Formats: sequence, structure tokens, C-alpha cells
Amino acid sequence: MSDDRDDATDDFPFGKGRSRRDALMLGGLSALGALVGGSALLGGPTSSFAQTKGAIGSATDKPFDILIVIYPGGTLLDFAGPNEVFALVPNTRIRFASPDGGPVELQYGIVWGKSERLADIERTDLLLVPGAADLTAANKPSAQKEILRLAQGAKHVTSVCTGSLVLAKTGILKGKRSASHWATVNMLAKYGAIPDPQRFVSDDNGRFMSGGGVTSGIDFALRVVEKLRGPAAAQLVQLLIEYDPNPPFKSGHPRDARPEILAMTEKELPGGTKGLWQIPGLD
Amino acid sequence: MSDDRDDATDDFPFGKGRSRRDALMLGGLSALGALVGGSALLGGPTSSFAQTKGAIGSATDKPFDILIVIYPGGTLLDFAGPNEVFALVPNTRIRFASPDGGPVELQYGIVWGKSERLADIERTDLLLVPGAADLTAANKPSAQKEILRLAQGAKHVTSVCTGSLVLAKTGILKGKRSASHWATVNMLAKYGAIPDPQRFVSDDNGRFMSGGGVTSGIDFALRVVEKLRGPAAAQLVQLLIEYDPNPPFKSGHPRDARPEILAMTEKELPGGTKGLWQIPGLD
Repeated sequence: MSDDRDDATDDFPFGKGRSRRDALMLGGLSALGALVGGSALLGGPTSSFAQTKGAIGSATDKPFDILIVIYPGGTLLDFAGPNEVFALVPNTRIRFASPDGGPVELQYGIVWGKSERLADIERTDLLLVPGAADLTAANKPSAQKEILRLAQGAKHVTSVCTGSLVLAKTGILKGKRSASHWATVNMLAKYGAIPDPQRFVSDDNGRFMSGGGVTSGIDFALRVVEKLRGPAAAQLVQLLIEYDPNPPFKSGHPRDARPEILAMTEKELPGGTKGLWQIPGLD
Repeated sequence: MSDDRDDATDDFPFGKGRSRRDALMLGGLSALGALVGGSALLGGPTSSFAQTKGAIGSATDKPFDILIVIYPGGTLLDFAGPNEVFALVPNTRIRFASPDGGPVELQYGIVWGKSERLADIERTDLLLVPGAADLTAANKPSAQKEILRLAQGAKHVTSVCTGSLVLAKTGILKGKRSASHWATVNMLAKYGAIPDPQRFVSDDNGRFMSGGGVTSGIDFALRVVEKLRGPAAAQLVQLLIEYDPNPPFKSGHPRDARPEILAMTEKELPGGTKGLWQIPGLD
């Protein structure tokens, strides 16, 4: 184990269990991620793993830093998927930061136990802004200022669901294509971003990457891993999280949902079927 | 709003923001769930909503109680999907309980901020046991005793991923078909359960329902909602969480994964490709 890795472990904010070192010691599913890029399994300089070495960091490089922005009212599933995917990739460091630090009450009253303060984070390699059904907390000027600062310094500026509107409001997405939850995707234009209805959107060769609503975070994160570590890494993670979806209905997008289901959403989220729902906290 | 609902709100353990009443007041996406079964949209006694009234409780019935068992080392995504799905169904009450109560350190060092004590829960309508990559905490005799007691008193005994092994070890799944993560599904036989490799498994007309590994929790929960509230409720939730999956690869199950990816999992999870990985904490 290199000095770099030990350093990364020691300054990890979540203590025992959070670091890759501890994950390896557990010997559980999470340890499997360490195989990708692990020297023991590198077939040589021509293997797909070796080729991607350094893109997201190999087992002996400085960890690739991922910062997930959380805030009051945030939707857990928007970032629980990406967290699981990224945690299974070796030599990543995932941190959580919020406007005030400490515990954060998410949507439905769920309490996220620990977070750093956004203002205390110097920089990150990949910034991820997840969404909420109410963006009031994320759109306060003090939060917007820190999110913009971190986005400007990040290699990759990413979002899931209505987190794209939080990013867009900072101005960083001007002229960039972005996804969002289907009910809000066209609101992106209000801030100069280019709405893209796809489930995963990449612009500027991956500097900007985004996912659609809620569960899109899983597809989003697998594509981020593919981009940064290559297809084998993404395939291994997909297998570990058994992402072999088999939804009971074809009802996950307005293009497929039955008219009466769409009518119900339109009544509660006016404009949503046109991607123009005025989500609370946007202005 | 009926007295029943107010009672349910008042004794809700997570305070402001957790109850259906608060969710409705937020006016966000979560409020949309209230439409299903809401009297304003009932077309009459022949509508699909009216037909399912009472199965999981209508807006004026006592809330349908869901208990999610959490424990040290547990995998967040195993229950983050089901939580999101169930939270969007009106008149449900979701509680979280752990062996010791209080904050719980999940896998990767994530801290879940609040939980009740399993021993303090009298009963629940639906018990959900999610999985982990290390079952040590969930398989301690004191935890097993409470899980068995709650399972015996529940209308629906459910699990996701390796949570099925936790349930099986209590003995409650003897002679019952169950899913689990693909790497462990055949370990169920050790406890007299009948391994079923499907992503969602129901036995005894829904008294026992289970999902496969990690992300299967989303499919599992949508099918539970379909069973308990009918297809329209499940379709509406599926639309709200934009569950329109588009994985980057066909690599989410051993039947589809490339041989070299499978070989990597087999090296780290010996026996896993046969569903016989000896997950830590099983014995």
C-alpha cells in the first residue's frame, strides 16, 4: 500500500469504514471494486484497465475525489445510486458536504448523519449536485456561491435530477447541454443551459455530465465510471449492484406513461408534462 | 383530514417533514403520491383506485406501516430505492429501526442519523430487511430474535439483496421461495428457504416478497405497490422516479456478464457465480 493511499485514508472525513483501505479489509462486496485497476489483475500495458490507469486514478495514485452536495429537503435516491456505484470503484474518495455542515434533514424527514461544510472544501475532482422536490435550500445565495466556486475548480461538473437546476442557476451551465427530471428539464433554458431530454447527457467531452430524474442517477454514475475508468470497470460495478432492471411497467417516462397517469401528474405539477414545472425554490 | 391521520402524524418518530401531512404541505413531487387513492380523483367505485382502497389504506384509513431494518454495515442503496417508492404512496408510514437505535454506521462509513430500537417496535404491517456485504450485525442472536418476532407479526415479510439471508437465518423462510443477491442466492437453502434466481419473488400470495441484489430494491418495491395498491399506483410512482432504465451495458447479472468480468468476481467472492459465496457474518 503506497504512502499516497495511507495519506488519503488518514484525512478521510468519515472515519473507520469509509476508506478504501477499510473496505478492502472488510472482504465484502465492496472489496471487489479494488480489483479494477488493481495491479494483481492488470494484464499488462495493453489491458483495458492499464489503458485507463490515471484517468480516475489507479490503486497507487492519489484518490479521485468526489464531492456530493447535500442540503435540506434533498432526495436520497438521487445520490444513493451514484454513491454506491462510485464507492465500488477503487481509489475514489467520496465526501458529502452541505451548506451548514453536520446532520442534514433530507426529504421525508430522513436524517443524513454527517456532512462537511461546503465552504470548508477547497476543491474536488468531481462535483455532484443531486436534486430535491424543493430547491429552496440549495438556491440560497450562500449555497449557490459555494457550489459555483467548487464547480469552477472541478474537473467534472455533474448533477442528477433537479440538481441540474441548482447548477444552472449558478450560471455554470450557460450554453451547455444538461439533463434534469422530465418535469423540469425545460426550465434549464431559463438559466441559459440547453435542455436535453436524455437519461444521461455529456457535454464538453465529459466536463459536464448529468442524469435525468431520481433513478437516472444509477445509469448516470455507471456512464461516468465508463468514461473515467473504461467499460470493464463499469461492467464490473453493474454486475455487483445487479443492475439488470426489469420494471413492472413501461411507465418511467412521459413518452410511455398512460394518459390518465400523465393527467394526474399534470394536475399536481402544472407544466410538468412539458418539462416546465415551477419547482418550489427555483426563484 | 381524519383523526386517524393526525394520530399517525403525531406519533411519527422522525418529526417534521416525515409525515404525509407535511409532505402534502411541501407541494413537491412527494405530494403527487397523495393523488393515488385521494378521493378527489376517485372516478367512482369502479375505478382502479377505488378497487384497491383499503389494501394498503386509503387517505382516510390508518396509515400502512412499513418498518425498514437497518444495522451496522448495511447497504444504503438496498433500501434507498424502496424508501423512495413507498414514500410516494399516500398514507404510508415508514419507520427505520436498528438493533441499538440511534445513529447507525452503514457500509462505506455512511452515518444514518436516526433510528428506533427494534425491541421498541410492537408490530408492523410490512417488514423490510435490506442487505449488506457483511451480515455480522444483523445475524447476532439479539437482532435475529427481534427480526423473527416482527416477521411473525407482520402481514408482509420482505427483504432485498442479502437481507433475505438474514430473514432465512431466523427460520421464517423455511419452505418459502426467496430472491437474494446473485452471489448468495443459493445460500438460502442452508436455512430451508427455496432459492429463486428471479429479480422479484413472491410466495404465499405476497406474504413473502423479496428482491435480488442492491438495485433490485426498486423493482421489488414497485411490485409491492402494484400488489398492495394496484397497477395505477405503481405506474404513477414509476413515472415520478423516472424509472426508465437504460444501463450502459448488458452486465447486470452473471447470465449476461462477460467471462473476464465473471472471473474477477469469482476470484474475490469464491463460489459467487454459483450463488454460493460465503458472505461474512453468515455463521
